[in-house]
Amino acid sequence: MRRGFCILALLPFILSLVNALPESDHDLHFSLHSRATNKNGSTPLYKNANADIEDRVADLLPRMTLEEKVAQLIQGDMNGWMDFNDPLDDTKTFNASGLAAMMAQKAGAIWGGYLTPWDKLVFGIEVGQRYLMENTTLGIPAIFQSEGLHGFTDNGTTFPSPIGLAASFNPDLLKSVASSIGEEAEGLGYGQLFAPVLDMSRELRWGRVEENYGEDPFLTATMGSAYVTGLQSGKRRNASSTAVGRIAATCKHFAAFGSPQGGLNLAPVEGGERALRTIYLPPFQKACVEAGAMAIMTAYSSLDGVPAVANAHLLKDILRDELQYPYFVTTDAGSVDLLISTHGTCADRECAARMALVNGVQGEMGGGSYTYLTLPDQVAAGTVNESSIDDVVKTILRTKFSLGLFEDPYPYSDYNKTLRTSATRSILRQMEEEAIVLLENNGNTLPIDPKSKTKVAVIGPQANRVSLGDYVFFNASNNGISPLDGINQFLKNESSSVSVSFSQGAELWSSDTSLIPAAVKTAQDSDIAIILVGTWSLDQTLLWTPGTNATTGEHVDLSDLALVGAQGQLVQEVVSAMEAKGGKSVVVFISGKPVAEPWIQEHADAVVQQFYPGELGGTALAEVLFGAVNPSGKLPVSFPRSVGTTPAFYNFLKGGRPIDAGMITDNGTLVFGHQYVLDTPVPIWSFGHGLSYTTFAYSNLKISPSTISANQNFTVSVTVKNTGKVDGKEVVQVYLTDTVSSVVTPNQFLAGFSKVDIPAGSSKTVSIPIDASQLAVWNINNQFAVEAGQFNVKIGASDTSLLNATLTVQ
Amino acid sequence: MRRGFCILALLPFILSLVNALPESDHDLHFSLHSRATNKNGSTPLYKNANADIEDRVADLLPRMTLEEKVAQLIQGDMNGWMDFNDPLDDTKTFNASGLAAMMAQKAGAIWGGYLTPWDKLVFGIEVGQRYLMENTTLGIPAIFQSEGLHGFTDNGTTFPSPIGLAASFNPDLLKSVASSIGEEAEGLGYGQLFAPVLDMSRELRWGRVEENYGEDPFLTATMGSAYVTGLQSGKRRNASSTAVGRIAATCKHFAAFGSPQGGLNLAPVEGGERALRTIYLPPFQKACVEAGAMAIMTAYSSLDGVPAVANAHLLKDILRDELQYPYFVTTDAGSVDLLISTHGTCADRECAARMALVNGVQGEMGGGSYTYLTLPDQVAAGTVNESSIDDVVKTILRTKFSLGLFEDPYPYSDYNKTLRTSATRSILRQMEEEAIVLLENNGNTLPIDPKSKTKVAVIGPQANRVSLGDYVFFNASNNGISPLDGINQFLKNESSSVSVSFSQGAELWSSDTSLIPAAVKTAQDSDIAIILVGTWSLDQTLLWTPGTNATTGEHVDLSDLALVGAQGQLVQEVVSAMEAKGGKSVVVFISGKPVAEPWIQEHADAVVQQFYPGELGGTALAEVLFGAVNPSGKLPVSFPRSVGTTPAFYNFLKGGRPIDAGMITDNGTLVFGHQYVLDTPVPIWSFGHGLSYTTFAYSNLKISPSTISANQNFTVSVTVKNTGKVDGKEVVQVYLTDTVSSVVTPNQFLAGFSKVDIPAGSSKTVSIPIDASQLAVWNINNQFAVEAGQFNVKIGASDTSLLNATLTVQ
Repeated sequence: MRRGFCILALLPFILSLVNALPESDHDLHFSLHSRATNKNGSTPLYKNANADIEDRVADLLPRMTLEEKVAQLIQGDMNGWMDFNDPLDDTKTFNASGLAAMMAQKAGAIWGGYLTPWDKLVFGIEVGQRYLMENTTLGIPAIFQSEGLHGFTDNGTTFPSPIGLAASFNPDLLKSVASSIGEEAEGLGYGQLFAPVLDMSRELRWGRVEENYGEDPFLTATMGSAYVTGLQSGKRRNASSTAVGRIAATCKHFAAFGSPQGGLNLAPVEGGERALRTIYLPPFQKACVEAGAMAIMTAYSSLDGVPAVANAHLLKDILRDELQYPYFVTTDAGSVDLLISTHGTCADRECAARMALVNGVQGEMGGGSYTYLTLPDQVAAGTVNESSIDDVVKTILRTKFSLGLFEDPYPYSDYNKTLRTSATRSILRQMEEEAIVLLENNGNTLPIDPKSKTKVAVIGPQANRVSLGDYVFFNASNNGISPLDGINQFLKNESSSVSVSFSQGAELWSSDTSLIPAAVKTAQDSDIAIILVGTWSLDQTLLWTPGTNATTGEHVDLSDLALVGAQGQLVQEVVSAMEAKGGKSVVVFISGKPVAEPWIQEHADAVVQQFYPGELGGTALAEVLFGAVNPSGKLPVSFPRSVGTTPAFYNFLKGGRPIDAGMITDNGTLVFGHQYVLDTPVPIWSFGHGLSYTTFAYSNLKISPSTISANQNFTVSVTVKNTGKVDGKEVVQVYLTDTVSSVVTPNQFLAGFSKVDIPAGSSKTVSIPIDASQLAVWNINNQFAVEAGQFNVKIGASDTSLLNATLTVQ
Repeated sequence: MRRGFCILALLPFILSLVNALPESDHDLHFSLHSRATNKNGSTPLYKNANADIEDRVADLLPRMTLEEKVAQLIQGDMNGWMDFNDPLDDTKTFNASGLAAMMAQKAGAIWGGYLTPWDKLVFGIEVGQRYLMENTTLGIPAIFQSEGLHGFTDNGTTFPSPIGLAASFNPDLLKSVASSIGEEAEGLGYGQLFAPVLDMSRELRWGRVEENYGEDPFLTATMGSAYVTGLQSGKRRNASSTAVGRIAATCKHFAAFGSPQGGLNLAPVEGGERALRTIYLPPFQKACVEAGAMAIMTAYSSLDGVPAVANAHLLKDILRDELQYPYFVTTDAGSVDLLISTHGTCADRECAARMALVNGVQGEMGGGSYTYLTLPDQVAAGTVNESSIDDVVKTILRTKFSLGLFEDPYPYSDYNKTLRTSATRSILRQMEEEAIVLLENNGNTLPIDPKSKTKVAVIGPQANRVSLGDYVFFNASNNGISPLDGINQFLKNESSSVSVSFSQGAELWSSDTSLIPAAVKTAQDSDIAIILVGTWSLDQTLLWTPGTNATTGEHVDLSDLALVGAQGQLVQEVVSAMEAKGGKSVVVFISGKPVAEPWIQEHADAVVQQFYPGELGGTALAEVLFGAVNPSGKLPVSFPRSVGTTPAFYNFLKGGRPIDAGMITDNGTLVFGHQYVLDTPVPIWSFGHGLSYTTFAYSNLKISPSTISANQNFTVSVTVKNTGKVDGKEVVQVYLTDTVSSVVTPNQFLAGFSKVDIPAGSSKTVSIPIDASQLAVWNINNQFAVEAGQFNVKIGASDTSLLNATLTVQ
């Protein structure tokens, strides 16, 4: 069962270290070895795999020296004992003194998110864990960490960006995706991935919109919960009976990170307690607390003047006391130092460490100056109470015991069997297909019949390119298939009579229009033009490399949401040319966030949204364009007409969208209105929107019971019939409006949804259970309460209503 | 002393009413007359002009019937007894039954803000007050109300819009302006004007930016305080010795109204307690509470889910309990009904009235359904406690006694003597001059020597137009002088050798570019082109008339801050033409808010900002352009580069402005950055910026004392020398930064300023006192506290630092 490479080489070093380990001045009642045994010589409780986790934590903590405790609070890094600079290097050696130094100070969680050959990674984790287990007094394993927003970052399978995962509106499928991600990471020895992101996409200029599940708390909570459940599902091999999951999901960023002022990364967030409770916290409640995520990461930003990393209200009052969250909370990289450099609430590292520890009950990630290294001296000086440190140590020990790491923290020797499996490939493909959203389809422009002799022009800078979004490993796009390749491959596989010509027309990153005429010519020679444009990001290496360019991703914030460079003109010229010749045009947005181009909605014959896909994006897009897959994605975020008409989110508070629209017509004529003078606050496409190649008829809406008491759950059911000619999946969406409430509530909010697969001509009755807690308002007394009165219950998308009914709360 | 028109005509009617007045079921221990006399027949205390106001209130209240009390809470309207439809009609008649009906139900404050001949207005107010004083049991006068943001609206003098008043950075001058406004309204019989507006211009899309004093709490507080002090200064004739002011200023809109989501009028405001305390409330504290404004108006919006009109935290906890505000608070027009129609917190008028009354301790303005008319029945039904009504009645009675209205509520017969006086004209002219801001002046393009033979082209849609902004009376612009007329008149008066040609070049409201070539030709035939462009609003009649157009003003919200229509192209073509021929170009923005046009900053030789002026705007602009006046205005609001780079305010919280700018060059080349990808969050011009025709040198910065205790005030002094060749006024600005604070504080904030007039070659030492309270943070315990540590003290504008020093708080 153990991994196969030779660990014997380590032995001399290990043995030499055992005697060289520094002994703390603290806890002198334990000798080096006796701290790890009971006075009577028996094995201590904390090593008993069958003991209760709380008992194990309680047994272990008093055995630890202050230095050992502090080391648990600081994130270590595998590069302390190995060299990961060259992603292709496969040298399995390590630096012994670096390992010892690292483990003496930073041994709680250890960053291991490097792009490196898997055998080298496994070697490094093995070395680290074996050192901790066998050559430290107490044998406390570390949690090895990596990223996993949409795939595990060390050459794991790349799935669509979270905004695309959300567009599937399929939490069961996302659970499978997350399970695959966890499976790939588990075998290699990882214990924690930094996902899911539960931030709200309410500020669309922010670069990280693609990392979120959209603008809606309920959708985010549901998808986040699915991710956590899938990722953590199962137990590690040899795990204790009390272990609760195989790998810790990390809900981030706690809290309200997604609405930075000006859309500027890390900028302060404005907002009050009611917004916090009703918009930002519900996803954490459901996906972290209820689904049992074994870690949480704090936000960089401040909220109403209090930095999230030192926010006692958020991290103690709410998370620990109210929500009784028991597990490990970590800061984000370098964020404790921001108390000094950015927030200005501390003058020195001692203050920063103290504020983060005492107000946050959290560990410190690397990426900064390791302020927590000041803690031992601060305890000695009396400025920090050791009990504050204990509080945090307990939480990370709890996560480790809950992962079963004390029993077997090592990589699996057969890790290869769970990486990039065909089962994972199949899940990936289904997710790619379900993530695509059909926004417009005038006159059934799509799908294109692959058996026809249609001449298709594929145009645009996103056509021959793989755009995976941020939080993927270096050169991950090499694993992907471009739309152009996907189309060609699909048509070849189908022995199609469709002919394809390609003309790029523009570079994403240039306003040079010299390529446009050739693209127009290519289009004019075709029956239909497919124009692929959008935003782009880069992998985690290139995104941070000076001199590169991108329009989305972490620390890449836009001041304009329209197409960049020559893309807009390219689209207009090609669409106009197709219109002039009586051909058709299809615009495909491949992007990490909404692109604000109302002209395209008004003029293109069809519009398809593919949020940054995963490795099979090109394949899935071809399947949709040519009808092998009936699109079923829905928008998890509303598309504004311009940056100046944001925010565009559908669930604005009542009174939030007065409409008296003006406009600038195509010929430039100004038509004056008031909200806005020359535009409308109504988005181009709103949350929940998405078309199909078939049609669905809704009937027989029932609420059971339709009159409830304040704490009574209810069910919304409806019959959906596929009235078209092809099979299709439909996302049945339930929206509620609290008609009268003691405080201002959203004009509507998503309360439930269900994705169902309905064959052509068939009907299904869909029942959606809704928890009474979803009716609660955060009232004037700062408590959640379900108030008596009526709720309007609507089936439809946010901006369309198919059926309505009334729910009464007595 | 009494007005001259014949009141005798009223007598038969009045006498008939005395006996017809309904008697309440309440307070039956008073007979009709005995309620207005003591049991022993003596005059009651409330009629004693020399008695203490609190005693008078306490004496009067129990004499009132419930109906009389409720009538005090509801705003009446003069149109109930007269017809003001035709502003030119001068018929002095009234409807007797309408008068009686009005006074029986709505008699607390009475709307009288009609455009009408003054003698008709005075007649109407006289009729109303005489009825109340002589023909109701208790003789409680009404407060007649009008608007007065920048001049009294019934044909009073129109001053620059508040944003322009603020640009003067001259509170003493604003005090004189407000005093003039009060003087014009006082004689006509008004007791209250609905100004100043203390909202913050942090959301520039909002239409009402022009009504505010800018983006800064301290500037707003200082200018607001000056307005209140000036407006209320003095006492009405025959007023009691205890009267505190002649006319009630109305601080509005309480609170946080200026930051509606999306910039959409009336939309909800997001924000927490710290933002409320440190940004939105300080102006109310200083201008209303400390300066003793005798009225406050609530906001339409909700703040973090609680409508301002029914916000007990704002209106009771803070305003009444903490700040001990004693006077009348009124809702805004129709805003109680919004609890039903907009905020969704009430289902019916009864609930709306109850919520506004109980949570607001406020009266109800008209413009809605008069929900307070439900109060008598609600008291009878036991759903409203009469003591809640008493609480509000006391506040309006307190305002009335404080105005001296019980002694003499009538218009003055010699009202003509205080309207449009030459003294007011002189104050107006100085304010017009000081409100103009010189933004750019490359190579001393300005001023133009009037003695030269320069050929000047005056171009643009703002040249031959008077743009006064909103909140002015119908056709008020007829009283103004356009820039073109101002220039021609000035040059004529100076017997100047400068020649002027005019070409409009574009309409404000059109994208038609056909007029541009002629304008370019006119420019090419000249030495210098002055191009006047900007935004526009309309008077209070036209602004609300369907079919009109405007780009700023109440309920006129923009989604884009660039020039509208053909204006941008006009400027670019004229500037480019002048550059090509070696001439000069001056762009003058006449606007109610910042215009976002970075190209103009980069290409025009000079840029002048004239926020919507008053009646002498054209004159003052000419004086500045030709050097008769040295400009001294400073920006009260920052100018963003685009709507997508907002918010642009200078006093953002620390961490709020990461900068890694990209750009799109003039030739379209994309230069990629990150904050923002293709732009910068740094404004074109920031708060406090403004040039002069002379130069000032700063030296000898002193802080006295430079080390203080937490509650100790201090003084910042500096020597300013006029080092240029012309006399000039300089605004010395003091900014503070709390270097380390327990919560996140602004990167800088204005803490003091002083405008000084310094002859060429002279020096002045300027001392600016700063109150210790300005150092306070709203700490984590929700209290204001001055914390020990250092403050960086800076002299300069927000974006330029001339001198620095350190203040230490021990």
